[in-house]
Amino acid sequence: MLNEKLEQAAAILNEQQIDAWLIFVRETSATPDPILDLIVGASVVWPAAFLLSRNGTKAAFVGAIDAAGVQMRTPFPVEAYKTTIKDPLLRLLQQLDPQTIAINYSRDDVMADGLTHGLYLMLCDYLQGTPYLQRLVSSEKIIASLRGRKSAGELKAIRESIAETLDIFDKVTSCLRPGLSEQDVAEVVNQELRKKGLTPAWGADHCPSVFTGPDTAGTHAGPTGRRIEPGHIINMDFGVAKNGYVADLQRTWYVLRPGEKQAPAEVQRGFDVIRQAIEKATAALKPGVAGWVVDAAARDHIVQSGYEEYPHALGHQVGRSAHDGGGLLSPRWDRYKNLSFLPIEQGQVYTIEPRLTVAGHGVVTVEEMVVVTKDGCEFLSTPQLELMCVGG
Amino acid sequence: MLNEKLEQAAAILNEQQIDAWLIFVRETSATPDPILDLIVGASVVWPAAFLLSRNGTKAAFVGAIDAAGVQMRTPFPVEAYKTTIKDPLLRLLQQLDPQTIAINYSRDDVMADGLTHGLYLMLCDYLQGTPYLQRLVSSEKIIASLRGRKSAGELKAIRESIAETLDIFDKVTSCLRPGLSEQDVAEVVNQELRKKGLTPAWGADHCPSVFTGPDTAGTHAGPTGRRIEPGHIINMDFGVAKNGYVADLQRTWYVLRPGEKQAPAEVQRGFDVIRQAIEKATAALKPGVAGWVVDAAARDHIVQSGYEEYPHALGHQVGRSAHDGGGLLSPRWDRYKNLSFLPIEQGQVYTIEPRLTVAGHGVVTVEEMVVVTKDGCEFLSTPQLELMCVGG
Repeated sequence: MLNEKLEQAAAILNEQQIDAWLIFVRETSATPDPILDLIVGASVVWPAAFLLSRNGTKAAFVGAIDAAGVQMRTPFPVEAYKTTIKDPLLRLLQQLDPQTIAINYSRDDVMADGLTHGLYLMLCDYLQGTPYLQRLVSSEKIIASLRGRKSAGELKAIRESIAETLDIFDKVTSCLRPGLSEQDVAEVVNQELRKKGLTPAWGADHCPSVFTGPDTAGTHAGPTGRRIEPGHIINMDFGVAKNGYVADLQRTWYVLRPGEKQAPAEVQRGFDVIRQAIEKATAALKPGVAGWVVDAAARDHIVQSGYEEYPHALGHQVGRSAHDGGGLLSPRWDRYKNLSFLPIEQGQVYTIEPRLTVAGHGVVTVEEMVVVTKDGCEFLSTPQLELMCVGG
Repeated sequence: MLNEKLEQAAAILNEQQIDAWLIFVRETSATPDPILDLIVGASVVWPAAFLLSRNGTKAAFVGAIDAAGVQMRTPFPVEAYKTTIKDPLLRLLQQLDPQTIAINYSRDDVMADGLTHGLYLMLCDYLQGTPYLQRLVSSEKIIASLRGRKSAGELKAIRESIAETLDIFDKVTSCLRPGLSEQDVAEVVNQELRKKGLTPAWGADHCPSVFTGPDTAGTHAGPTGRRIEPGHIINMDFGVAKNGYVADLQRTWYVLRPGEKQAPAEVQRGFDVIRQAIEKATAALKPGVAGWVVDAAARDHIVQSGYEEYPHALGHQVGRSAHDGGGLLSPRWDRYKNLSFLPIEQGQVYTIEPRLTVAGHGVVTVEEMVVVTKDGCEFLSTPQLELMCVGG
């Protein structure tokens, strides 16, 4: 996959007319640059530079103690240095004389913001007195395109992660019953992960997230000792990582009360509104549309149906990370910066995850994953079309 | 441990006369700030600010979707925001009016360089037109003192990790024999890790690192299919993480050839020179001395004994990370910046890890861990005093 993405990167440099892209990192176990996994494939301790030019030149300058390990893993040809990276780096820049040099910083996109401020200052020190200091630009557009446009291999890997994730959701559905705690449900998931030899898509402390009933801890919190009771809405946010690519899905259940054959009308209505919101969003989602337009399609429907708006974006891109950066399906809030305005591109993979609260019961939230096609989008996940009822 | 370190941090702010320390982060699973584990204890998705003042004020502004999960884990009082972090952050700064505001960037120390360049620019945008923009300073001295000065709880945790690590080294000693590959030896270690329910101290792809014989892949490389043969020197670099603190140790073995009762003279001499280098280093290591002086004590002895100098630092600090930042026992090379010149402080934990090559046999490298005392240092690891021989 590294070579596939590296070729794509060189094409994107040409398309965006950027001469060179410089990835400057150190001690990546402590301060990783999210781009490393996608095109470098190795970790370093000493300061290291990986350079790609639009004519396809690849070069890497890596500390003496890192060189052998890096060369075993990366498609970049590695040159080891002993006391300073400055000399080989300047030598290469003089040789290539790039008019623009993209580096990994971005106010808006965390996945394009892998360069720490101290390393940025160090790079500026090295380039002081050269013409290259004035030629530094942000790589955010390169990275947004590169991460966003999924290759065939990437889509295949994402589909596999989705299949494994839905399989574990099915297992959870068959186990849910009143009396289990959120932590008990999480343990069912963790057992399945161990059986499959897979890891969670994000931090194990809140992957899965499990919420039962009203007044739960809220999104991004870990499962608690709170127990499932009749009348609760249960939801779970979860995904697996497999072969370096992840899924991110949510499903909702209702726990029947004695004598109930189906969910009460207010719970069913909440689920229906979420389904409608997802339909409105996927109808709006196609290349060229700004992300906020898709968010608004779902958000407006929920608000017009009498519910409070969800306090987050409708969706984000997914790839090697659950939050894979680039454009978002987000409202035009300062917190989302420019990411709400980026045009959607073919080949991108988004979540669609509206949410609403049904008073006294809990939170209805369904999260699907879609891939953007030439003129619309297709579900990658098998959508949850019916509210699942537990017990009875 | 979080509260213990937070109290220490407030004292260090007073000692260094810094009014406030601002930790500004986002999407910490992709771009973590290494300080989070030490004093915050939580991860976030949306931009978040954690502020500590020298009079002990603690505050955290965290996105609405992160707030509940963060509050479950951190000792900071959490205030949730919905659309922008700018307003609550500026309000607090106006209230405290700090004359100096430390932020996490450093040219020299990666553990103090957790702020990305894009986030730095975003912070500057927010502070534009306020007096606070001119009051930003680097937190590198705060972080060097805070990480370096180990509390009693931290030292206890490190001793436990060392004990577990040496236990696994003993297991390896009892298993080594000609014909095993480096990967086979690593699998012995991995089995022990699984039995103990522990994780490696750094990336599993090269923790343990195992090297047998001459012309191996070099430091920081992963174990290969290369097989142990009589006449080889074997060395292994390994440590466990336990309760959030790690060990980092190396041991060396010699594989006897048929008829040999002991290692040949040139191998034994290599080991003796390494032992002497460690003794010279620990004799020089005490509070107030610059790190490079300690490195030079070992390095000079190895060079004067006729070996090539090792291409790395003699030692680094250890704590939550194997490479825990702050001052180093390093040569005055550009690559190590100012870190070779910092005075050693009581309570710091360092590795001592000289290395030399014995032609035709392999690399002799022994890595011990020491804690700096009032007027010297003490071994935390039980030192390897004898070359261990395999087979015979």
